[in-house]
Amino acid sequence: MNQKTIAFDADDTLWHNEPYFDEAQAKFCELFQDFASKQEILQTILNHQVRNLPLYGFGIKAFTLSMIESALELTNHQINGTVIEKIVAIGKDLLQKPVELLPNVTETLEELKGKYKLVVATKGDLKDQHRKLHDSGLGPYFHHIEVMSDKTDLDYTKMLNRLECEPKDFIMIGNSLKSDVLPVLNIGGIGIHIPYHTTWEYEKIDFEIQHENFKSISNLTELFEIL
Amino acid sequence: MNQKTIAFDADDTLWHNEPYFDEAQAKFCELFQDFASKQEILQTILNHQVRNLPLYGFGIKAFTLSMIESALELTNHQINGTVIEKIVAIGKDLLQKPVELLPNVTETLEELKGKYKLVVATKGDLKDQHRKLHDSGLGPYFHHIEVMSDKTDLDYTKMLNRLECEPKDFIMIGNSLKSDVLPVLNIGGIGIHIPYHTTWEYEKIDFEIQHENFKSISNLTELFEIL
Repeated sequence: MNQKTIAFDADDTLWHNEPYFDEAQAKFCELFQDFASKQEILQTILNHQVRNLPLYGFGIKAFTLSMIESALELTNHQINGTVIEKIVAIGKDLLQKPVELLPNVTETLEELKGKYKLVVATKGDLKDQHRKLHDSGLGPYFHHIEVMSDKTDLDYTKMLNRLECEPKDFIMIGNSLKSDVLPVLNIGGIGIHIPYHTTWEYEKIDFEIQHENFKSISNLTELFEIL
Repeated sequence: MNQKTIAFDADDTLWHNEPYFDEAQAKFCELFQDFASKQEILQTILNHQVRNLPLYGFGIKAFTLSMIESALELTNHQINGTVIEKIVAIGKDLLQKPVELLPNVTETLEELKGKYKLVVATKGDLKDQHRKLHDSGLGPYFHHIEVMSDKTDLDYTKMLNRLECEPKDFIMIGNSLKSDVLPVLNIGGIGIHIPYHTTWEYEKIDFEIQHENFKSISNLTELFEIL
């Protein structure tokens, strides 16, 4: 029997992430509160992020550049260097946030260690995700960290080829139905959803998933009832 | 006998890259020619790039953010949004450059195919390097593309662990003595240098390498005399 592979998403699955982005966006909104409402500003950032995805991909550097473009749009280019510097600083600050593990992560990995091939499968900035894995102290539990430029069906298929893992032996755990569950179900793997209390707008889907290989848990410890 | 792995650096080893950066920097220098000499401007960019490496890593998004910081410094923050937009555009333009293969790349890979496990081992932006590999048409030759956050001894060791490859069975080919050759020699692999006509300042070293596992070639076809 082949050893099964369990892949964990990182941000908001192993450690907190989205609240840092929310905090960063709140700081940005404050800088431009004379130009638009908070809701309009957030929508402007999201528009730039989504438009830039094909070129920039995911991660904090892309987010920073999208914030800068948003600032240009919001101010009709009437912006000075000091404010641009503040935006760059918001991005740099994000890249230095402490890594705070989610509940039961260490215990779960400790229990799975040796029984499964454990992998981190995440989007985002390469350097930043490696830094966070290092700072998390979780590195030794994982066979490797796979920073993916996207999480489409094809991206998962390529990763499984490299891991020499059959889809039926692959279990993906993450907080995004769109990125961590749906594509994995599509290629014949098992998708386990563990919701985080807040989700990036871009990752939201507006339908329910019904699939025999889909499970949703509210706490990592429930994993052992499924496996 | 284990199958040997040959890893190729990508930028300026498989395809042209540095001239695009030179062109981008020339455009940047033109924007700020009233503020400093070309040499001073280039040095300012380099300073920001190197200072930002620990946070940003390598690649075009990091380069763009470093250009923006350089612009703030050069103008003492007296810069308007229109110029910032031009800098962002320089970066986006770089992300869409055509991929032009270097001489004999396809023929060499065709000849090596099946005899060695072939890998791309490169720094830079994840999304961008995947895009370039796709656009190059070289994808099918490679077992996988490894976008590395850095190319230190440790980064190579980790990669070899994942590839389940012994250092003695690992051959790295690239245009940077600092990134493609030295660390590989350090960990017991074979480093083959194929110089490109121009080298990024950061990648330059000021000593000669003498090592039994080190070879320098001027054309990829010379590879077959070594292997």
